[in-house]
Amino acid sequence: MGVEQTYMIDSVIHNGLIVTADPSFRIIENGGIGICDGKIVSLWKTDHEQPLPQAHEIFDAQGGIIMPGLINAHTHLPMSIFRGLSDDLPLHEWLHEHIFPAEAAFISPQSVELGARLSCAELLLNGVTTCCDGYFLADNVAQAVIDSGIRAVVGQGVVDFPAPGVADPSQNVSSAVSFTRRWKNKNSLLQPSIFCHAPYTCSAETLKAAKKAADRHDLLFQIHVCETRAEVIQCKKDHGCSPVQYLHQLGLLNCKTLLVHAVWLDEDDIQIIADCASSIAHCPESNMKLASGIAPVEDFLCAGITVGLGTDGCASNNDLDLLAELDVAAKLHKIRQMDPTALNAATAVKMVTLEGAKALGLAQSIGSLEPGKCADVVIVDTLQPHLKPLFHPESHLVYTAKGSDVRHVMVDGKWVVRDGKLLTLDLPSLLENVNRLAETIAERNGLAKCC
Amino acid sequence: MGVEQTYMIDSVIHNGLIVTADPSFRIIENGGIGICDGKIVSLWKTDHEQPLPQAHEIFDAQGGIIMPGLINAHTHLPMSIFRGLSDDLPLHEWLHEHIFPAEAAFISPQSVELGARLSCAELLLNGVTTCCDGYFLADNVAQAVIDSGIRAVVGQGVVDFPAPGVADPSQNVSSAVSFTRRWKNKNSLLQPSIFCHAPYTCSAETLKAAKKAADRHDLLFQIHVCETRAEVIQCKKDHGCSPVQYLHQLGLLNCKTLLVHAVWLDEDDIQIIADCASSIAHCPESNMKLASGIAPVEDFLCAGITVGLGTDGCASNNDLDLLAELDVAAKLHKIRQMDPTALNAATAVKMVTLEGAKALGLAQSIGSLEPGKCADVVIVDTLQPHLKPLFHPESHLVYTAKGSDVRHVMVDGKWVVRDGKLLTLDLPSLLENVNRLAETIAERNGLAKCC
Repeated sequence: MGVEQTYMIDSVIHNGLIVTADPSFRIIENGGIGICDGKIVSLWKTDHEQPLPQAHEIFDAQGGIIMPGLINAHTHLPMSIFRGLSDDLPLHEWLHEHIFPAEAAFISPQSVELGARLSCAELLLNGVTTCCDGYFLADNVAQAVIDSGIRAVVGQGVVDFPAPGVADPSQNVSSAVSFTRRWKNKNSLLQPSIFCHAPYTCSAETLKAAKKAADRHDLLFQIHVCETRAEVIQCKKDHGCSPVQYLHQLGLLNCKTLLVHAVWLDEDDIQIIADCASSIAHCPESNMKLASGIAPVEDFLCAGITVGLGTDGCASNNDLDLLAELDVAAKLHKIRQMDPTALNAATAVKMVTLEGAKALGLAQSIGSLEPGKCADVVIVDTLQPHLKPLFHPESHLVYTAKGSDVRHVMVDGKWVVRDGKLLTLDLPSLLENVNRLAETIAERNGLAKCC
Repeated sequence: MGVEQTYMIDSVIHNGLIVTADPSFRIIENGGIGICDGKIVSLWKTDHEQPLPQAHEIFDAQGGIIMPGLINAHTHLPMSIFRGLSDDLPLHEWLHEHIFPAEAAFISPQSVELGARLSCAELLLNGVTTCCDGYFLADNVAQAVIDSGIRAVVGQGVVDFPAPGVADPSQNVSSAVSFTRRWKNKNSLLQPSIFCHAPYTCSAETLKAAKKAADRHDLLFQIHVCETRAEVIQCKKDHGCSPVQYLHQLGLLNCKTLLVHAVWLDEDDIQIIADCASSIAHCPESNMKLASGIAPVEDFLCAGITVGLGTDGCASNNDLDLLAELDVAAKLHKIRQMDPTALNAATAVKMVTLEGAKALGLAQSIGSLEPGKCADVVIVDTLQPHLKPLFHPESHLVYTAKGSDVRHVMVDGKWVVRDGKLLTLDLPSLLENVNRLAETIAERNGLAKCC
């Protein structure tokens, strides 16, 4: 075992196949983890001659895959209330005739908190222990996040038109700054952030002010960029350069900037991002469903850019199942490159673990199972027919397992999901409230009552 | 209710949202189904003033989506034993250095039956009530199929080299014919079929003899075709025409021919297939994972070709989750066409229901919930956080639900899955046998013992 124990630890998780996702992507068969005060204190390969460390809780993983909690690099948590409201539509019609009107009619502090709770429940049940969110009324998102027990970067949205909670656009950046002040250092699981919607919905002044504020407070700055080809064409017309070049000229790109989507980039854009050490949140399913395009992820990785994986919001995906997203990502880049070796399983797993943590600026504390890091731990079942046989755990995680195969989830040393049951939120009451809101949404949209 | 009842029926399933998948794609809110002697005898919208029909069993679907059993148009059931054995490799290396050697070493009547049982368990648990299979030692596949209670078209493989169970290639067609004779009319759930592996692994004589035999016995004829660009190039070199034209010249294309993959087709090929009323089994995840390409499914549909959806075998996908495949298919064609309206949710659902049934020549008996058809019925959960809210059931089935959301499955009027538990096979013993075989496979492949 090789574990020198000098004090009683809180939890031991053992009898699992550990995918550490550490920099050497070490896999430990029949491994164990010791956890104390929310931190990982030891990892070992079990030697049956040696006893397990003494601990308050000895948890048998029953041969499951033990891995770091998944990191979802891009979400809009409150939008789960619009899941499946409208699909299969041209982007402009979808946004302007369905999503924007639905937001105008139904987004309130209450509905934001409700939608965020619903999303947090889904994320935790699917093994996501950290998400990076951007939306309006972020105080309500933050409250839902804290109640659910998930770890999150919560971004207050900034746009140059009236938005939920910010009626006067001239207050958009100061509102965001106030939000971040309220939440900074309030709860160790929550990092506030500023999320500028896009280069085409924020003026240069807004963008610069928002980024300056984010840098001043050492916060992650998030922005959608180059999601569609049309956006790039328009930016070149308006500013004479690509959106990435435009953001670069404004001084927005540094190592605390997370660029979301990044579908339509040329070689120069990719080099700029690499040089600035900015990161990318790749959202393949959303980009496919909206027919935006396929981001050149292999090129990002070649250039040394950190890439995390995000589901995007439920209005455009329509779920938050990051393991399923992983499968699609790995396959999508094979077909994009016409190369079956592209985005192999280990590389894909890294995108939702250590690389995802790097993209969010949290790699010092999460993203891998290593002593000293926070105990964000997921145990994936290996006992169902579709999970047999198991030859390579990383292949299983990418090509076979879904969120529904996650059995147990720990955040910061505390169990939040056990045996597939969420421990932190009152699910029946939550779902009843969602049903009630959904009935109103359906009615307003002339839909049959089938929620 | 409007149900005139003249006799006691076997089962009533009620309190569900029925997606009939009938030709008009009728959806019945708060619907019910009456089942007698394995057949659907009635469908209705529940009127709470009226009592339910009298039945031996009254089954409450608890607001779930009630839909026809899913139809998986292409599988290689026994290959589940090689799930995840090798991924992320160039096609030639994957086939020749991993899959073919594994098959040579481990394919036997016992392993084929074991693998097929494992696959049938996975399929039924995921809501697939009919699959269309092609492999060798098809008698053993058939036995597993019958034991599991799934409905299946089982094809005996034909190639012009020694194959498992057919050491002498000159006996390939006669062996297949013997197989079909043994199983024809033996069990109403099983239709035997002949499966020629590909135009490049069977001679013209073999292909013609196999198709002639299939037609004589009114059987489905299956063949992989145009899976890779290289195959098309080689065929043009060898035969001076495309694989589809070649098969057409040999007289192989008629309404009982199912063309599998069909990735690299030109306009002429598509027109030939449409004119011959042959069908296509589309396998998007396998085609992505092996970087084969993206089949032009929208063009097939425009040409009026019947298209079913298949997972392919577990060596190249790596699961049999047809609802997850549906999601990928719908998104993949949006990105292929750069059009978010491509392959909408209803069209996608049809591919795994009525169109799938047509592709297999079974639309008179399965593929939709209509009086007179076999009672192959699936109930999909709608009570989990990721399934809330529900505005459009077809959107839910494609973009949100996974196989793991299937709660109850009935084949031919008999429950085979209840509350997510398989009723027909001894799962613990099956998985133990799979583990034992997997350990041998892992050992021979120099893998750590982690099955």
